Amino acid sequence: MNALLNIAIVGSGNLAWHLAPALENAGHSVKQVYSRNKKNAKKLIERLYAAELNTDLDFSDAALDVILIAVSDDAIESIAQEIILPNGAILAHTSGAQSLEKLGYASADYTGVFYPLQTFSKVKAVTFEKIPVLIESEEKYTRKQLQKLAAGISKSVYEVSGSQRAYLHVAAVFACNFTNHMLSISEQILKGQKLPPQLLHPLISETINKSMEIGAKEAQTGPAYRGDMQTLEKHVEMLAQDERIAEIYTVITQHILDSY
Amino acid sequence: MNALLNIAIVGSGNLAWHLAPALENAGHSVKQVYSRNKKNAKKLIERLYAAELNTDLDFSDAALDVILIAVSDDAIESIAQEIILPNGAILAHTSGAQSLEKLGYASADYTGVFYPLQTFSKVKAVTFEKIPVLIESEEKYTRKQLQKLAAGISKSVYEVSGSQRAYLHVAAVFACNFTNHMLSISEQILKGQKLPPQLLHPLISETINKSMEIGAKEAQTGPAYRGDMQTLEKHVEMLAQDERIAEIYTVITQHILDSY
Repeated sequence: MNALLNIAIVGSGNLAWHLAPALENAGHSVKQVYSRNKKNAKKLIERLYAAELNTDLDFSDAALDVILIAVSDDAIESIAQEIILPNGAILAHTSGAQSLEKLGYASADYTGVFYPLQTFSKVKAVTFEKIPVLIESEEKYTRKQLQKLAAGISKSVYEVSGSQRAYLHVAAVFACNFTNHMLSISEQILKGQKLPPQLLHPLISETINKSMEIGAKEAQTGPAYRGDMQTLEKHVEMLAQDERIAEIYTVITQHILDSY
Repeated sequence: MNALLNIAIVGSGNLAWHLAPALENAGHSVKQVYSRNKKNAKKLIERLYAAELNTDLDFSDAALDVILIAVSDDAIESIAQEIILPNGAILAHTSGAQSLEKLGYASADYTGVFYPLQTFSKVKAVTFEKIPVLIESEEKYTRKQLQKLAAGISKSVYEVSGSQRAYLHVAAVFACNFTNHMLSISEQILKGQKLPPQLLHPLISETINKSMEIGAKEAQTGPAYRGDMQTLEKHVEMLAQDERIAEIYTVITQHILDSY
């Protein structure tokens, strides 16, 4: 049986809200919570067994193994520099998009990234078990400790390099931000025709599920995939009143035509 | 209680496979099945109460209310011209992308479109109840009969114009074909980093569900939405080795920047 870890959480946002209790459920102990928003910090502490409020980012007197920074991307670097750590503690941030170097000027002996790859909202329960957790560090000790932390909450733990995590973030922009924007354009077209967006929901669900099931390349359909030039030309004409949307249609269509 | 309808199905593909039994479950009667693929036609007939094989598209001797054409888009026009209908029967196709005019040269007294808005595969059971069915016709009688047929299988029946259906198809290209292509690019990026595509699946599911729940415009996130120019520039650099993918990134990013 591995030794359980003593943890401090910096931040009280959506991720901290779900992650801190999940780590306690895995047997670890959250000793302290810091947040600029003290009200939220206190609410989070109420979700935990015996955590205490930290008000000054000075953790040097506590027996801590890991300090997890779960704040917005922009705030990581400045918060990290303010933190005073006990000897031998690991400082890790939880962002997918920010480099490990953001912790470079912190006073930590050990630094790493502990990135649960999911989007969180406070009102929605989370099952960590299926959420991939990505671990990054240049130190073997840190990787081992963060692995242990991750394995307690998730069945899907990966060690990645900084470069892999950066490309993963680009991939997520395509798979999530851009797919959502495609849905947004689609809703706009439906609205222009006084059709409800719900009309396409069953088809969207089925399309995405099929894509994840058999792989997106195998799952591709549509006029561009079939090389149906007549339909493609008609669509571009129909979209002509908004040339930016027509351009997006043309660029993606051309890439599908080139890819199959 | 409305009178139930006698139906013939032309085609034995994925849609016919699920639609014909669903219409019978709603109390209607599928009298005849025609398909160029006789083996599939016979298999479909085995799924039905008392349907007979039609081998020549001559339905003139049968007491039929509706002949539904459920064949591939390209084949609709030529098949429609071959069909010989009984007096007073409705001829309808089931395609979302093809115009009503494709039935223009058929010998039918009444023509319409009966379009279940979903993608089908034979191996997967279908619950029609939640699948929108779009009805189009220029004749009131036809609209009424096709409405009746649709209402038996789905709780979500819409009358649309040809123009609305055409724009719906464009919207579906964005919402389904293009989202799938975004997933495809994302898988390609992960593959290039030797990362499994499954890594992003929980995030994709959550993103799409949230988007449908609160609306895509509300659900938008990411560096372009935040106007995080530093990350956007870094991503374009990272994608530089494939300039077409970099172009797609730039065009969609610019549109998100302009939209929020």
